[in-house]
Amino acid sequence: MIFRDKLQIATDGRGTYDLSANVQQVVAASGIGTGMCHVFIHHTSASLMLCENADPDVMRDLETFMSRQVPDGDPMFMHTAEGPDDMPAHIRSILTQSDLNLPVSDGQCSLGTWQGIYLWEHRLAPHSRHVTVTVQGE
Amino acid sequence: MIFRDKLQIATDGRGTYDLSANVQQVVAASGIGTGMCHVFIHHTSASLMLCENADPDVMRDLETFMSRQVPDGDPMFMHTAEGPDDMPAHIRSILTQSDLNLPVSDGQCSLGTWQGIYLWEHRLAPHSRHVTVTVQGE
Amino acid sequence: MIFRDKLQIATDGRGTYDLSANVQQVVAASGIGTGMCHVFIHHTSASLMLCENADPDVMRDLETFMSRQVPDGDPMFMHTAEGPDDMPAHIRSILTQSDLNLPVSDGQCSLGTWQGIYLWEHRLAPHSRHVTVTVQGE
Repeated sequence: MIFRDKLQIATDGRGTYDLSANVQQVVAASGIGTGMCHVFIHHTSASLMLCENADPDVMRDLETFMSRQVPDGDPMFMHTAEGPDDMPAHIRSILTQSDLNLPVSDGQCSLGTWQGIYLWEHRLAPHSRHVTVTVQGE
Repeated sequence: MIFRDKLQIATDGRGTYDLSANVQQVVAASGIGTGMCHVFIHHTSASLMLCENADPDVMRDLETFMSRQVPDGDPMFMHTAEGPDDMPAHIRSILTQSDLNLPVSDGQCSLGTWQGIYLWEHRLAPHSRHVTVTVQGE
Repeated sequence: MIFRDKLQIATDGRGTYDLSANVQQVVAASGIGTGMCHVFIHHTSASLMLCENADPDVMRDLETFMSRQVPDGDPMFMHTAEGPDDMPAHIRSILTQSDLNLPVSDGQCSLGTWQGIYLWEHRLAPHSRHVTVTVQGE
């Protein structure tokens, strides 16, 4: 059995957005008890990750780290049509995930205690992001 | 239903190779309308990614970035049996993806407008790369 | 058909642990010949990867690289409640994988010759790590 739903996430610019509840709602709606849940983002300048979900400092530190690793406006980048955050957004996406596959048990994604599902908006400006959630199983 | 096909990609050394058409052909051949498409590379010195597919500068910038992050011939590397690009190829592979899972809708991979499926050859010399595409669904 | 088993891996601190045999045993026990094998780690401070499995220098070089990219105790990190390796462990996990999806053929994970399945413990202290292996197919 395959159940699919789409999420549209309005971001207000660079930062992380917790999708855990949205994804768990799709799994619940599917009626599937055991199987897999797949989360996919249809963009190359925003990405997905599983990350610690308790301390807001983690998200701040992640942003600090990435901003140092992939600096906006680095003169090595030629692809700057959409601004200094254009190419860094693609690289940040590649260094993280465009899709996550999660085990479903007892009718929900079986995440670790501290695992949250996050969308990471890498562009500075607000965007509307499309995410497809697919639940497969019994 | 499970449909599987293998791709053999001849690379002419370090660089990116657009597999989008190859993968979409396997999905079309599967006859599956709704499900998942999985792409897997059987190597540890070449990898997969989803990336912006319109501006060639993106691929050049990616290469520039990775060459700076993981320099060939960095003296910290002990694993140099196959040359200065040997260990960097493994690290580049680990920082990107060995497998991609993509939703299938209406008989094709439902990618975002700017998402292309790329093989990234990390070795300097030409290689023959094996990729398995699996389509599951209805 | 869906078959699932759980692995509990006792680590003795930072380093890599080869799970290839453990995962292949689950696939064998499933009785599934053709399909997919999914490996998931329920933590945000340890991760999974596919990597070269022959030369121990590769694992040493990986550790050297990551320690340079994401230094323990870097003063930019605010999230240090569990020590100088706390935030670096989250970042290392995000830069690698929390889940791997592998094709199953002829009753086993169809890996490349040099591909091993590794758990990468990023915390300095020993931990008990939970991994779920799901095999789907025919």
